[in-house]
Amino acid sequence: MSAEAKLVELKIQLPPAPKVGGVYKPVVIAGNMAYVSGHVSLKPDGSIMTGRVGADVDQEGGKKAAEAAGLAILATLRANLGSLDRVKRVIKTLGMVNCTLEFTNHPEVINGCSELWGKIWGQEHGIGARSAVGLGSLPRNATIEVEAIFELA
Amino acid sequence: MSAEAKLVELKIQLPPAPKVGGVYKPVVIAGNMAYVSGHVSLKPDGSIMTGRVGADVDQEGGKKAAEAAGLAILATLRANLGSLDRVKRVIKTLGMVNCTLEFTNHPEVINGCSELWGKIWGQEHGIGARSAVGLGSLPRNATIEVEAIFELA
Amino acid sequence: MSAEAKLVELKIQLPPAPKVGGVYKPVVIAGNMAYVSGHVSLKPDGSIMTGRVGADVDQEGGKKAAEAAGLAILATLRANLGSLDRVKRVIKTLGMVNCTLEFTNHPEVINGCSELWGKIWGQEHGIGARSAVGLGSLPRNATIEVEAIFELA
Repeated sequence: MSAEAKLVELKIQLPPAPKVGGVYKPVVIAGNMAYVSGHVSLKPDGSIMTGRVGADVDQEGGKKAAEAAGLAILATLRANLGSLDRVKRVIKTLGMVNCTLEFTNHPEVINGCSELWGKIWGQEHGIGARSAVGLGSLPRNATIEVEAIFELA
Repeated sequence: MSAEAKLVELKIQLPPAPKVGGVYKPVVIAGNMAYVSGHVSLKPDGSIMTGRVGADVDQEGGKKAAEAAGLAILATLRANLGSLDRVKRVIKTLGMVNCTLEFTNHPEVINGCSELWGKIWGQEHGIGARSAVGLGSLPRNATIEVEAIFELA
Repeated sequence: MSAEAKLVELKIQLPPAPKVGGVYKPVVIAGNMAYVSGHVSLKPDGSIMTGRVGADVDQEGGKKAAEAAGLAILATLRANLGSLDRVKRVIKTLGMVNCTLEFTNHPEVINGCSELWGKIWGQEHGIGARSAVGLGSLPRNATIEVEAIFELA
């Protein structure tokens, strides 16, 4: 099943592609690789999901924010590629968590993004290499920022 | 206009390429991609611009430090490639800000680097994908560290 | 001398490849590039070396932890590629240190990983581009996390 068909089956609505918030491009394509800029966790209305995991947001809330960042990347990919079906697979993700210095469950939080992509493109193509780490701070106090490299079909 | 001609027009003097401060290479070329190591913000005399944005350094000082890190990368590229004209375009930048845990304007700070590269290579080729984030700490208490991937002509 | 022969000469025993601790693949190969997920510092028994450099762990302990993360990556590479001799060279490393906000010697810490790889593959092929930075927090309170890109032969 194609990624776009999977979205329909799962009844997942993509938000609008996020507005660019600085001097960068949302995605740059080089050969068959798409380098996607850091995307923060967005609410359906386009506002940013903010707050620090371990203080303002609990682990489950962080995971939902990671899924939201993953959705924002899907929106950017579709807006720039025309269709998610042009993506062959996920190569590498850097999942960044805005959390307290004591927080230690970054993988469980970033799984929110990775599980989403695994549903869309399947376990073989939707799951890539990854690092999941705790940043000191993120833009606009966003809970999550995710950047990724995708291979195109 | 070529990147080197643009530097002349803008009267931008590149600092000396920074000395290597650890066990790494300043740049590694693989195919037509140049992977550039993290470069910290340097003063014209080669010393490091230090201090935390939001405490020791204000946002505008952080932006100047990001421009300085961007200049240091230009110096490394010229020293290793012979000329900035060998760079076709910016693919991906990771802009890391040494800031307080409360700081939220990382994009505006890292724009200091991105705007410089946009002037040198133009909006189409000088602006790439990017993440701009807040680190807990940076080497030598540098204000900024930037790493990047460039495509070669 | 091949990397595997060098391991024998140096009497270096690789630990078992670490178990996957989230929704990701330990390594993804795209063309001749291997993208390796973030690997934390592991003890020989497979448990995680924890603690913050500058507080719970000193700089030398941090360097040993970085070497341990580098060893874990070697174990993953061998498990996935069959032999370290399939690696041509190190392209790019991101060395992440779990440290106090005041720590400034990240390069010396991450050298623990880079020096190991330099011994295994030699100075020309074993040393790549690199960033060495301080994270706010790391999964399971690991002292070090390293991710890297390798070129395959």
